Amino acid sequence: MRAQAPLDADALAKSIRAGDRRALARAITLIESTRGDHQAAAQRLLEALADAQPDTVRVGITGVPGVGKSTFIEAFGRHVADAGHRIAVLSVDPSSAVSGGSILADKTRMPELARDERAFIRPSPAGNTLGGVARHTHEAVMLCEAAGFDVVLVETVGVGQSETAVADMTDVFVLMLLPVAGDELQGMKRGIVELADLVLVNKADGELKAAAARTVAQYANALRMVRGRSSRWMVPVETCSALTGDGVPEVWEIIQRYCGVMGEAGDLQTRRAGQATRQFWAEASTSLVAMLKRDADIGARCAAIEQAVASGQLPPRVAVRRLVDTLLNR
Amino acid sequence: MRAQAPLDADALAKSIRAGDRRALARAITLIESTRGDHQAAAQRLLEALADAQPDTVRVGITGVPGVGKSTFIEAFGRHVADAGHRIAVLSVDPSSAVSGGSILADKTRMPELARDERAFIRPSPAGNTLGGVARHTHEAVMLCEAAGFDVVLVETVGVGQSETAVADMTDVFVLMLLPVAGDELQGMKRGIVELADLVLVNKADGELKAAAARTVAQYANALRMVRGRSSRWMVPVETCSALTGDGVPEVWEIIQRYCGVMGEAGDLQTRRAGQATRQFWAEASTSLVAMLKRDADIGARCAAIEQAVASGQLPPRVAVRRLVDTLLNR
Repeated sequence: MRAQAPLDADALAKSIRAGDRRALARAITLIESTRGDHQAAAQRLLEALADAQPDTVRVGITGVPGVGKSTFIEAFGRHVADAGHRIAVLSVDPSSAVSGGSILADKTRMPELARDERAFIRPSPAGNTLGGVARHTHEAVMLCEAAGFDVVLVETVGVGQSETAVADMTDVFVLMLLPVAGDELQGMKRGIVELADLVLVNKADGELKAAAARTVAQYANALRMVRGRSSRWMVPVETCSALTGDGVPEVWEIIQRYCGVMGEAGDLQTRRAGQATRQFWAEASTSLVAMLKRDADIGARCAAIEQAVASGQLPPRVAVRRLVDTLLNR
Repeated sequence: MRAQAPLDADALAKSIRAGDRRALARAITLIESTRGDHQAAAQRLLEALADAQPDTVRVGITGVPGVGKSTFIEAFGRHVADAGHRIAVLSVDPSSAVSGGSILADKTRMPELARDERAFIRPSPAGNTLGGVARHTHEAVMLCEAAGFDVVLVETVGVGQSETAVADMTDVFVLMLLPVAGDELQGMKRGIVELADLVLVNKADGELKAAAARTVAQYANALRMVRGRSSRWMVPVETCSALTGDGVPEVWEIIQRYCGVMGEAGDLQTRRAGQATRQFWAEASTSLVAMLKRDADIGARCAAIEQAVASGQLPPRVAVRRLVDTLLNR
């Protein structure tokens, strides 16, 4: 299965390194594929593009539907691009698996950024589980970085545990709130505020300006009670208006300041190392079994053990021990 | 770790086979333990007690808090015991991991059954995940059967995916409902009705008798639209009163009829085989990694690979492939 791959992973890697956006799109489709030959090619591609210390910024953003994420990402993306960066926008939306299509990062939601040569927009991968979607997105971040996108933004609507997943694949996590008072109205799940490195109250324009200021005060107050993710970083609570652009450049300034403070202390590096390690073990526990089943020798042994389990001769736990012993003693 | 176990698993197995309830309780504690030596002893115990075709009935039951599960189980348990059976009651309650103690199968909730020599009651195991709790319960069912309990009832309140877990470890799954009209009032999650082999509307006594009859009509109607789990079995919808005992003997009759119909056709055996197989693979994917890490050789290799992942040299997916190759090529 690994010997003959229809895709030339090395050529694809080269095109990605050259910044080819179509090659990047193709590569992301490849890593999302469940086909055996595609997976083998994805392996080689990821290996070819691995970079120990990419000098990039990974920004996570979450907020309830209607908070204005798309409008914000358009304004933010163009500001960041104008500042000389290349920005990629990815999304983690486990609900897309159910609805059959992504509601996030749809290019029509960010028409200007979608046309911008300096940007790359990719909708949420299909997947049956958050784990699968998160894994693909984690790898897509890596591919975007290899293609020269030095700012990668990962957005999520916050279905299930998706905020936790996104916070665990980014350097800085932004929580976007509506300019309303009271937690219930925000529709935010408990524990999300604790994940944030920056809290943004959007729609601070027109009639909602005063309400936004009150929300900021309320959250700034609440955050004093919460122990942040780092002792080096006091989580800012700011207003912005994605519509008018007010406060958007300041968000980029704050993120840069954050990366400076956390990068100097080595915290960012530690955070990425922890994220990669967790990703590895999560991936190991889900993939190991599938890979073993595909092995000629071990696969046959697996089938025999499975048969003994199905007939009730071998309790599942004992069978797992047998499987491990088979692996260790061959 | 496996050479010296402080517990004599074989002696314990013998006591269990003799029907010793204290030995059974000790054995369940053993299988729930995370200690290495306990796990080794649990392995041997399960192996010693494995029985290919135990002639038992595994009954799952779910219903929202307040539906009257405890009262029903008391009445049902005593009826079944009077009919010459020995009954064990176990529970799957993932919320007990959070609250620090089980709210289910507490002996004080079923005082009469708890005193009954012919019954065995065990609260929900502690555990961090539903998977862990379900695994232990699945194994506890096996131990109860080895101790001569030929009817094993597994109850759950339906937190998270626990109904699915319980339906997937029992022969017959009972959904207990309140005598109220309208799905919302039942507090039931979507998709639960599809899991049921028998729907019971409890509290069909006094003033609620008419409401219970209406609920039965409503669900019987709804169930005509639902494709059941077997073409051989039309899911009955019945009333009962755990308080007065009305309908309780009929529940046992229905379950026996179900087992007759499904057993003759070989469906029960197929169902148990499928359950054991799924249990095995679920267990394999979560345990394999832990077991490999503990192995001297492979453990060291794991640590080296993990280090490469943490430093960003190896993408997680590629690292998993390395790990598998290490296993297959040693």
